[in-house]
Amino acid sequence: MTGQAATLDLVFHALADPHRRGMVERLSLGRASVKELARPIGIALSSVLKHLKVLEAGGIVVSEKIGRVRTYEIQPEALNAIEEWTAARKRNWNVAFDRLAQAMADHPENQERRAP
Amino acid sequence: MTGQAATLDLVFHALADPHRRGMVERLSLGRASVKELARPIGIALSSVLKHLKVLEAGGIVVSEKIGRVRTYEIQPEALNAIEEWTAARKRNWNVAFDRLAQAMADHPENQERRAP
Repeated sequence: MTGQAATLDLVFHALADPHRRGMVERLSLGRASVKELARPIGIALSSVLKHLKVLEAGGIVVSEKIGRVRTYEIQPEALNAIEEWTAARKRNWNVAFDRLAQAMADHPENQERRAP
Repeated sequence: MTGQAATLDLVFHALADPHRRGMVERLSLGRASVKELARPIGIALSSVLKHLKVLEAGGIVVSEKIGRVRTYEIQPEALNAIEEWTAARKRNWNVAFDRLAQAMADHPENQERRAP
């Protein structure tokens, strides 16, 4: 598996959970502590920490400990890998679709229909 | 969990595997049979079928049986949910970033520095 494929695995996996997406949604508004992240979700701090580990593994968040408080911050460029992958699929699909449309237009039956 | 969250779970989960992404990459070029999807990956047909089930659950592919051959087709709009979610996170992050930049510019220390 290439490094890029492994990264995509981790990023897609990290975002396949509603609690983790909720944390990313919160962090996209600004940095937050574990407690601040746990409060709106209403799950145990230990579960929040597990989810944050998965997000860190995917490179989606980074953390920093200042004094006794660890805060988390989003790394928006981690979402670029997903955006690039989905955009490439759509480009290919559009090319394939245009080719099909052209083949249909070039079909003898359609040519005859357009003849005067 | 709302319907949209459940959909995002399934779509992100479906794409968190390199074999499944490989199948989506192949299908973005045009429809293919199970055999055609299995060939470049070199895994058992039964494994390919399992992966295709996950992709179908995420609404990323649909299948049709013509005679004895089942062919699969990509549903590119399934990727829209992902694109919209990542774009919304980036928008929020940019707003938060601009607000921070503005707060820094408005800080008395920076105001003084700009004074003639």
